Amino acid sequence: MQALVLSTPPSRQLQFVPDLPDPEPRAGEVLVRVQLAGICATDLELARGYMQFAGVPGHEFVGTVVDGDEQWVGRRVVTEINCPCLECDLCRQGLTNHCPRRTVLGISGRDGAFAELLTIPARNCHVVPDTITDQQAVFVEPLAAAAHVLDAAEFTPETRVVVLGSGRLGLLVAQVLAAQGCRPEVLGRNPRTLELCARHGMRTHRADEVLPRGGHHVVVECTGSPEGLRLALGLCRPQGTIVLKSTYAEAAPFDLAPLVVNELRLVGSRCGPFPAALRLLAERRVEVDEMVSAVYPLRRGVEALEAAARPDNIKVLLQPGLT
Amino acid sequence: MQALVLSTPPSRQLQFVPDLPDPEPRAGEVLVRVQLAGICATDLELARGYMQFAGVPGHEFVGTVVDGDEQWVGRRVVTEINCPCLECDLCRQGLTNHCPRRTVLGISGRDGAFAELLTIPARNCHVVPDTITDQQAVFVEPLAAAAHVLDAAEFTPETRVVVLGSGRLGLLVAQVLAAQGCRPEVLGRNPRTLELCARHGMRTHRADEVLPRGGHHVVVECTGSPEGLRLALGLCRPQGTIVLKSTYAEAAPFDLAPLVVNELRLVGSRCGPFPAALRLLAERRVEVDEMVSAVYPLRRGVEALEAAARPDNIKVLLQPGLT
Repeated sequence: MQALVLSTPPSRQLQFVPDLPDPEPRAGEVLVRVQLAGICATDLELARGYMQFAGVPGHEFVGTVVDGDEQWVGRRVVTEINCPCLECDLCRQGLTNHCPRRTVLGISGRDGAFAELLTIPARNCHVVPDTITDQQAVFVEPLAAAAHVLDAAEFTPETRVVVLGSGRLGLLVAQVLAAQGCRPEVLGRNPRTLELCARHGMRTHRADEVLPRGGHHVVVECTGSPEGLRLALGLCRPQGTIVLKSTYAEAAPFDLAPLVVNELRLVGSRCGPFPAALRLLAERRVEVDEMVSAVYPLRRGVEALEAAARPDNIKVLLQPGLT
Repeated sequence: MQALVLSTPPSRQLQFVPDLPDPEPRAGEVLVRVQLAGICATDLELARGYMQFAGVPGHEFVGTVVDGDEQWVGRRVVTEINCPCLECDLCRQGLTNHCPRRTVLGISGRDGAFAELLTIPARNCHVVPDTITDQQAVFVEPLAAAAHVLDAAEFTPETRVVVLGSGRLGLLVAQVLAAQGCRPEVLGRNPRTLELCARHGMRTHRADEVLPRGGHHVVVECTGSPEGLRLALGLCRPQGTIVLKSTYAEAAPFDLAPLVVNELRLVGSRCGPFPAALRLLAERRVEVDEMVSAVYPLRRGVEALEAAARPDNIKVLLQPGLT
């Protein structure tokens, strides 16, 4: 099969491989033919050495089950990315997404979706309703991560919330909050994505704008830069919540005195609930079509990742069937 | 009256003043004669320039009301330290401890307890029951701050919790948690204070001991050093809580990736409930007498603050009546 492969360090190169052996599903797994895959910031970080990953990257995708458990064959699916052991202490307590022995699709110990085929445990699959297009379904994984913000704080129509960062994740988080009945403000650098937010009726701010200190009950940090958290610590009102979605590759200096003096809660947030994301898309409460900047065939995948790194593109997709 | 006075920058000197004019209570305030005052880490920080404070420091004390509102005159009291405006947005929402216009006894905009007399709003007063000695009552303010940890996370007998730091605050936090039915572990540098914890039946660890990573539901950070939070980020299990009691004077580098990947909650915690602290002391559920290392007269106050900075002393008290 065709695939993009990230080689082991120290060479660490992403290459298009036209003839990688097809993967074979193990017990409990299904074989999925990938229809469409999305490129996210984590993929760009992997190519820079994050997680020491080598293999096929890619974890946002929609595809069709072609082999394995019969009840799944023929179904169009999206799949959760964490593959836990189901036996350890954390798994038994329901914290399967935090299993220390887990593999993660296209991120850790398991080949991912920048390929024609992939294998994944059948229990990770969710059927995609017909009302959701492939192009929309590829957003289920990042939209689930965005929806997980709702688990980190209480959100009511009165909650004053600002999303820092108007990139791929910030746009989804802002829409999730709007669907929840909030009126999120969005602060970002990119005039184009801020324009999208404004069209959704959101109040937008340019990154150099000075917002009132201590004015927001909740600040969602999606900038991907330590500067975002520094800003959040100033914007959040006493006893408010900062939801941290960004991971920074390296240690950075922070003045955490405001966290104690103002008794803030800083909550780390990662993967989220797939059913909620599917529902948001099926009910047309989140708009993702406008976020697709380009679709590339797999053989131009290296170029596609370069395109995804440029701020003028929002979401770049890979379509294995495209020639 | 006699008092210790911290002079304005840049000289910034703590001095004993034998003849400071007596303070006069304003409307709604009472005049309190200080019986006993405690020296805490914040006082040592103030002398180093924290909060740009100038005036009489000291915010942990017990005293007797000698003038002002008649219903309070003659009562032995401890008093809350935040004096809010009661009119702003945050005050009206009950967040009076976070009023941006507040003064704070001996810390910000208001002379404190290292003096023979002080003034404070009558509404800040709590009567001390006769069963609590002066020496115990002086611990009410820091014990309330320790008890506030209970508001930051859920604690059951099954909660695996470790307190980082066996200083003044760590010792109180550990005892509060034990009184709550937990079996806290305590990690610290000082063999003498660890010995106190061990006598209370707590499991103790020396600071150089390696604890299992990801093993604790809750980590309470009381070390006063950025190293403590770095350690906490490794010890806390996925979706666990780190309660941050320490303020660090300056920005320090932190790798916050574990916070996001393990979905931790980092909660800042400051002042706490006086009634809970009074109850813990009245019911003899927290032992503070063993923590008193020395009692100094006010005129030897500069020496007393130097003594409080030495690790061989736990709590150093000032007694204005002592000659």
